[in-house]
Amino acid sequence: MTSLLDLVLIDLYECDRESLMDTDRIREGMLEAAKIMGAEVVGDSFHTFEPWGVSGTVTIAESHLAVHTWPEYDFAAVTFETCGQHMDHKKAFNYLIGFFSSRRPRITQQKRGFIESADNTVLPYKQVVG
Amino acid sequence: MTSLLDLVLIDLYECDRESLMDTDRIREGMLEAAKIMGAEVVGDSFHTFEPWGVSGTVTIAESHLAVHTWPEYDFAAVTFETCGQHMDHKKAFNYLIGFFSSRRPRITQQKRGFIESADNTVLPYKQVVG
Repeated sequence: MTSLLDLVLIDLYECDRESLMDTDRIREGMLEAAKIMGAEVVGDSFHTFEPWGVSGTVTIAESHLAVHTWPEYDFAAVTFETCGQHMDHKKAFNYLIGFFSSRRPRITQQKRGFIESADNTVLPYKQVVG
Repeated sequence: MTSLLDLVLIDLYECDRESLMDTDRIREGMLEAAKIMGAEVVGDSFHTFEPWGVSGTVTIAESHLAVHTWPEYDFAAVTFETCGQHMDHKKAFNYLIGFFSSRRPRITQQKRGFIESADNTVLPYKQVVG
């Protein structure tokens, strides 16, 4: 069996509160994380909430990244979902741990989308067309 | 301890292949799933790939939804990540099982973002401001 997707859950506790509130900066940070990971960004969507907090998604050729922040709990939840064998998750989440100044990061990794594969062939990279 | 986020992984195997290729229809289906769930949509980003396949994210006031399709494997990976106590995940994923005509859906649910809570207070709903 081969899995199509890697799912990395990055729960960032005890962050710097200020870093969880600036939507433009968080968008830049997530786009930078995608770049550091080696992903190809194809779109993004970021929003600011009241009383505070930011939600955003970055669609990449290899799947997506997401972030949701709770300044009231000094907490950010980051998700990486990627396909392909060339994504450097560790480099990207280490960047984000620093970006949010998290003093207690908790990271879990899992796989999903299991398919039968006779020969462990490397799955083809997909090109964006629209 | 209270958890801030529910994560629902919906792996849809043995889908109708045609249903995995039409980006506009898939976008409509994901927006409908968000509506059925009871979520407030604040943005979306959908893309078409070569040789085929669709990736998309829907940002909601309560977090995000994502979909990634592999027509070559008759497979779609759908993710619901939500906060709040009022999301009807089951109704939404049952809709998508029908939408993609999946004959072998595999669904797992987990929680993330654990915070200490003295009184299990219902967390406030966040209003979109930007």
